[in-house]
Amino acid sequence: MKIAYLGPSGSFTHNVALHAFPAADLLPFENITEVIKAYESKQVCFAIVPVENSIEGSVHETFDYLFHQAKIEAVAEIILPIKQQLMSTSADKVIETIFSHPQAIAQGKQYIRSHYPDVKIEMTASTAYAARFVAEHPEENYAAIAPYAAADEYHLSIIAKDIQEIDENYTRFWVLGDETPTIHLKAEDQKISLALTLPDNLPGALYKALSTFAWRGIDLTKIESRPLKTILGEYFFIIDFENHNEKLVSFALEELTSIGIHYKILGKYAVYRL
Amino acid sequence: MKIAYLGPSGSFTHNVALHAFPAADLLPFENITEVIKAYESKQVCFAIVPVENSIEGSVHETFDYLFHQAKIEAVAEIILPIKQQLMSTSADKVIETIFSHPQAIAQGKQYIRSHYPDVKIEMTASTAYAARFVAEHPEENYAAIAPYAAADEYHLSIIAKDIQEIDENYTRFWVLGDETPTIHLKAEDQKISLALTLPDNLPGALYKALSTFAWRGIDLTKIESRPLKTILGEYFFIIDFENHNEKLVSFALEELTSIGIHYKILGKYAVYRL
Repeated sequence: MKIAYLGPSGSFTHNVALHAFPAADLLPFENITEVIKAYESKQVCFAIVPVENSIEGSVHETFDYLFHQAKIEAVAEIILPIKQQLMSTSADKVIETIFSHPQAIAQGKQYIRSHYPDVKIEMTASTAYAARFVAEHPEENYAAIAPYAAADEYHLSIIAKDIQEIDENYTRFWVLGDETPTIHLKAEDQKISLALTLPDNLPGALYKALSTFAWRGIDLTKIESRPLKTILGEYFFIIDFENHNEKLVSFALEELTSIGIHYKILGKYAVYRL
Repeated sequence: MKIAYLGPSGSFTHNVALHAFPAADLLPFENITEVIKAYESKQVCFAIVPVENSIEGSVHETFDYLFHQAKIEAVAEIILPIKQQLMSTSADKVIETIFSHPQAIAQGKQYIRSHYPDVKIEMTASTAYAARFVAEHPEENYAAIAPYAAADEYHLSIIAKDIQEIDENYTRFWVLGDETPTIHLKAEDQKISLALTLPDNLPGALYKALSTFAWRGIDLTKIESRPLKTILGEYFFIIDFENHNEKLVSFALEELTSIGIHYKILGKYAVYRL
């Protein structure tokens, strides 16, 4: 079975893929759009992408592509604790430039400021890409912020451990596909994610949409607006809620439709934690 | 009068600062946090930062700093149409690498894919920084995506005009300070922005918060969640609404407090359009 993930090797998404599908053939892709396109062109059975970090928030590329372009749903969610390591080609390297993904840079900002106030920061497309780039330039005074898996993958030495500012740092990943995958972990919860588009402007319509869930006692676990990419102030809304009573949920969805609120199901999935 | 803005010279924020405060002494700072800190350390009277783009969404660094750390409010809002230009040190340059801010890269993605499918993309901290970097390396096959003002500032030639995907592309900028500035433009609207923290989990509390505005007929123009940076699924909410009836708004704010919802005022401001 082939599975696409946000690469390169050694990325957090790779780590999730290895745990969820230890026997599968895992194929790295360069960005989130390419990962989802690999599924759409039937190169793979499932695609794994990050959706939200507890500190930095949603991964907009994922939600925007799923809402605007994709015909694919989340069929499983996997939550991974995020630990960031500072690494280089040797443990005693004098560091002049640090490479990493903007979110990892943000998460390690206080550490960098206090230990490397004059260092140059370079943004990369992913943490694992930063690690690979540093490994390819052993003659330079480069370091990367990346996960342990990337240090293993690219034979880098850890200079500082767990430099992320906040210990409670988790990322949600979605397995996208058209059937429920067999994942050898214990499911913690059942959830549904929708993208809502409202018939007229706020607050009336959003208030009605929330009423649909509130009076049925269906707990939302997330609500977020994203620009519709039309004019300033027009949004679609991502909501996540518990899928504990399928009948109640199907009534709520029917009611949304009947009051003129359009929704796109982004996923119905079990939630697993690594 | 000194005013801090998100630099370098030639940035969109610089453009806004020049229009809003043509006679002021404008000081560029490297990132949003430094711009706000310049105000906090009393180096400047006002600080100008971007807050939201109609395509890419909110500027998280601005909202997160204002919510978590700053004691400063928005006292004016300025809306700027965003046009992105591809520029280099000469108009007939063979382009191998394109530098720009991730949002500008996202806005020009389709143009880049169709005209420069094999080009290398490098992310920079701002569009103007990309333009400056390209100007500093005339011997390289570099180009930048940046505003016209940056081409002027760094003497670059325009290779392609208005490469942004969607014509309706606007960015909101906030003037932060402690008094209402004199801006020689016509105010279009009066608004208030709040950050709400809810006493317990969704949907009950958010639903109640929205009710406070909905039944008074106060129109929200934005609602967005941002992670509280504690655990996954805990958020604060940014809401914007019309400030057309001060008495009604003050009743709504009192009611929020009385039902246990905390709010921080992010700004009370007139809205101007360039």
